[in-house]
Amino acid sequence: MLSGSPTKYAVALFSGFQALDVFGPLDALNILSASTPLGLYILSTTLSPVSTIPVKDPIPGFIGQSVVPTHTYQDAPSDIEVLLVPGGQGTRDPELTQPVVDFIASSFPKLRYLLTVCTGSAVAARAGVLDGRNATSNKLAFDWVMSNGPNVNWIRHARWVQDGNIWTSSGVSAGIDMIYAFIADQYGQELADSIATISEYSRSTDPTNDPFSGPA
Amino acid sequence: MLSGSPTKYAVALFSGFQALDVFGPLDALNILSASTPLGLYILSTTLSPVSTIPVKDPIPGFIGQSVVPTHTYQDAPSDIEVLLVPGGQGTRDPELTQPVVDFIASSFPKLRYLLTVCTGSAVAARAGVLDGRNATSNKLAFDWVMSNGPNVNWIRHARWVQDGNIWTSSGVSAGIDMIYAFIADQYGQELADSIATISEYSRSTDPTNDPFSGPA
Repeated sequence: MLSGSPTKYAVALFSGFQALDVFGPLDALNILSASTPLGLYILSTTLSPVSTIPVKDPIPGFIGQSVVPTHTYQDAPSDIEVLLVPGGQGTRDPELTQPVVDFIASSFPKLRYLLTVCTGSAVAARAGVLDGRNATSNKLAFDWVMSNGPNVNWIRHARWVQDGNIWTSSGVSAGIDMIYAFIADQYGQELADSIATISEYSRSTDPTNDPFSGPA
Repeated sequence: MLSGSPTKYAVALFSGFQALDVFGPLDALNILSASTPLGLYILSTTLSPVSTIPVKDPIPGFIGQSVVPTHTYQDAPSDIEVLLVPGGQGTRDPELTQPVVDFIASSFPKLRYLLTVCTGSAVAARAGVLDGRNATSNKLAFDWVMSNGPNVNWIRHARWVQDGNIWTSSGVSAGIDMIYAFIADQYGQELADSIATISEYSRSTDPTNDPFSGPA
């Protein structure tokens, strides 16, 4: 492990989060933590389980899963170094995600890194922390995402984008490639490759290789 | 949707399951359910949240997440059509996974499909349902997995294997490619491709393309 690599992670949940946006990155971090001890806080507005099914107007027959938070946004520990913000249908509900927006805005100055997956970058944009930065998002929701951050330099053709201490990924599965790049950057290429082998994952190491945005 | 495609799914959880083994496939099924109404039962020995961290001898600093079950193995609904069995460190604990083994053995005759990811095939092998069938598993744990099913025709070089109504995948992320193949088989290629595009996932459509087992 490189000196000074982060060890305290948090994930910002809300009703209607996308499961793979969260568990793609977290599964790699779970494996990382077997050799590099980490801490993980799972944040929500309350300590009740948080479902991937949006609370408002759920589609009949839409299935989902519920995850147990460890802390509320109000009582979140102050030593968070890396905050992960997923996307999902819930991001389309401004009222529902306002506590996440507020938490990003208030915690960002103390964070070492902010990571978003999919439409999580729309939530971060609303917090103002992406203003003047390069960022990307889900390709099918890109125009809507851009409307959430008119002062952000949105980059459509990207698997993920790093701008300083902010990493944003494209839709859903792109978060997996981003977290491997983040792990390589923070803990070394060898460890990232080892976790990918354990996961039998053929990771994309080129952030500009985006098969889903059409011609560059 | 093709006539007769399954709609009732269950996932068999146990302490120390691998997060991505579960949420890779389930995220694709979640998206599928937005256009094709599904049911999902999340099974465990009790209704308490189930952690990805093994109960026995957890590594200090090992992080994890907890998922809320909907039913116990004892009270599982009788209309399950597809059972998904993940792998993970918990599969190394025979006592812990015995309820899963028992449930697979008792429910298999009524199932339409059994799907396993990673070392989930070792659990299915212990239930005897893989005897005489082709199956695969995690590459790094392959020899141990084989010891759990001496009468199984284990296939090392495979991303996933279908033998009749049993689908088994290689380690962790291979479950994602397998579920897309299963969705294509059951609900049509077009829908599988559409879900992969929504997920921005470049799926492998060749079950024999296994970059992690060494030369074929």
